[in-house]
Amino acid sequence: MPHSAPPHPPRTAADQRDFETALRDVFEQRISFNKVLGFRIESFDPLEPRVRFDMRPELVGHYLYGRLHGGVISAVLDATAGFALMCALADKHRDEPAEQIVQRFLRLGTIDLRVDYLRQGIGERFHAAARITRLGGRIGSAQMTLVNEAGALIATAAASYVIS
Amino acid sequence: MPHSAPPHPPRTAADQRDFETALRDVFEQRISFNKVLGFRIESFDPLEPRVRFDMRPELVGHYLYGRLHGGVISAVLDATAGFALMCALADKHRDEPAEQIVQRFLRLGTIDLRVDYLRQGIGERFHAAARITRLGGRIGSAQMTLVNEAGALIATAAASYVIS
Amino acid sequence: MPHSAPPHPPRTAADQRDFETALRDVFEQRISFNKVLGFRIESFDPLEPRVRFDMRPELVGHYLYGRLHGGVISAVLDATAGFALMCALADKHRDEPAEQIVQRFLRLGTIDLRVDYLRQGIGERFHAAARITRLGGRIGSAQMTLVNEAGALIATAAASYVIS
Amino acid sequence: MPHSAPPHPPRTAADQRDFETALRDVFEQRISFNKVLGFRIESFDPLEPRVRFDMRPELVGHYLYGRLHGGVISAVLDATAGFALMCALADKHRDEPAEQIVQRFLRLGTIDLRVDYLRQGIGERFHAAARITRLGGRIGSAQMTLVNEAGALIATAAASYVIS
Repeated sequence: MPHSAPPHPPRTAADQRDFETALRDVFEQRISFNKVLGFRIESFDPLEPRVRFDMRPELVGHYLYGRLHGGVISAVLDATAGFALMCALADKHRDEPAEQIVQRFLRLGTIDLRVDYLRQGIGERFHAAARITRLGGRIGSAQMTLVNEAGALIATAAASYVIS
Repeated sequence: MPHSAPPHPPRTAADQRDFETALRDVFEQRISFNKVLGFRIESFDPLEPRVRFDMRPELVGHYLYGRLHGGVISAVLDATAGFALMCALADKHRDEPAEQIVQRFLRLGTIDLRVDYLRQGIGERFHAAARITRLGGRIGSAQMTLVNEAGALIATAAASYVIS
Repeated sequence: MPHSAPPHPPRTAADQRDFETALRDVFEQRISFNKVLGFRIESFDPLEPRVRFDMRPELVGHYLYGRLHGGVISAVLDATAGFALMCALADKHRDEPAEQIVQRFLRLGTIDLRVDYLRQGIGERFHAAARITRLGGRIGSAQMTLVNEAGALIATAAASYVIS
Repeated sequence: MPHSAPPHPPRTAADQRDFETALRDVFEQRISFNKVLGFRIESFDPLEPRVRFDMRPELVGHYLYGRLHGGVISAVLDATAGFALMCALADKHRDEPAEQIVQRFLRLGTIDLRVDYLRQGIGERFHAAARITRLGGRIGSAQMTLVNEAGALIATAAASYVIS
């Protein structure tokens, strides 16, 4: 007796492109604060999702040294972990169409976040990466890093999320 | 035998005004990101220093619900704790002129920050407060809260700082 | 048309005593590590649940100063928040019998914990208290404090929990 | 003109052995709570310092599942980071005799600690490792992990320390 077909076949290359286009649109354009800060998705690789942004005068926290405001650092690390969770969920739910994964993104909530500010946020371009350490049915956890274009480790972070 | 005079007499009302004017200028105008986000000092009371800001479209993190981006919340809580440490240091070093306290502000560094996002950041005006829980010679600690104009508790936070 | 009766009437004084006896047994006797550390429930008041323990040589982290090990501090603060969540859930679900609330305790899980070690853990008796800052359907959050018998604030903490 | 000799030559193999013996004695025997929990130094390698301990009935937090109490997990992660900082300081100050490094250990203080409890603490033997992410003149930071004998990642952590 054949068991019932899944509601959707595993994600095709076309559906993956749809997912990436839709998620990029939400992440870079529709989340206003991400747009103000200039966050751009750099890699959709579920093993190493990354976000980047360029230094700009508005992002400065210390005018004498021209370094990033701590709030910019915590914003990008939180946003990158949320993005990484979406890549992991898209990978876990390969049978779901792109729009359904984006709906999951809109229900994602940060429970709490810790940031360690290790070095001054000096540089021209910054790259944030996240690693998923837990992907349960209700709770997701991630560890994040921020480096500048020279590879200096500026901050690390850990956060917990409600997922659905 | 007379003991030597302190280098400065305790802070006068005029010197307190100088301190407040100088710190407000640095906090609201010269820290670019604070200015972009619209952070304003609401109270210099060392027992309850407060910062406020208004909702604006650029600060939105979730376009469907019009709620604050988590990065705005962590930025204002970190900034408010730093401001509160300055009020506490100004109170502790009453014999120091205003400019010297502002120099301490410029040397302040956030070691790490934890934010708990308790409720959706919905509202028209937000108020952040900080309480200093440690004021040592090298390390300062603070606990922070963010409420909206109706008094709903949106987030709490804890952070550690290098002070000098 | 009558609507269906609730499965249990609101908690009676007798049922509250049963709940307190059952929770105390689990907390103080059946959780081995709580017993090793000597944690005792001091107050079941849902507005201010408290746990206490006495200094003992085994709990020392620094033999020169005879102060508490950081691990004892984090253990008591985590345990006290879990206990406080149970008091809050018992208050929220007044129609549930004691045993059902204790089952909720056994399903409780700490997602993450932050502890700020503010002062040396010196004293003869210590008192931990917790305040619930979020009690949702899936996530609970708490803030905790530890003082010694003289009221000195030794540590503060924040934690997130999975509840059911 | 000869410049003055350093007070001590770089650490010899004999001095390294003295350091390891002295630090192990303090860590495993003289810190009472470490001894109660059975923490043992597994590796002095400054690139990957490790601590291990065996499951024992006293360390259980959940009697139904026989899993580690969260307080044991936070205790070992904090202790391992402190130990790792000592290995890093011994490596940085190679000209200091063993006893001087041990004095630094006795002045070490945890500022704050975050633990993420990712999986149930089930196993027969546990291994904790720490990586130093900052080693400044006043502040040290570390990231820690706890795995069981099968390599399952049970917890991660981050902490800040006052060093001297």
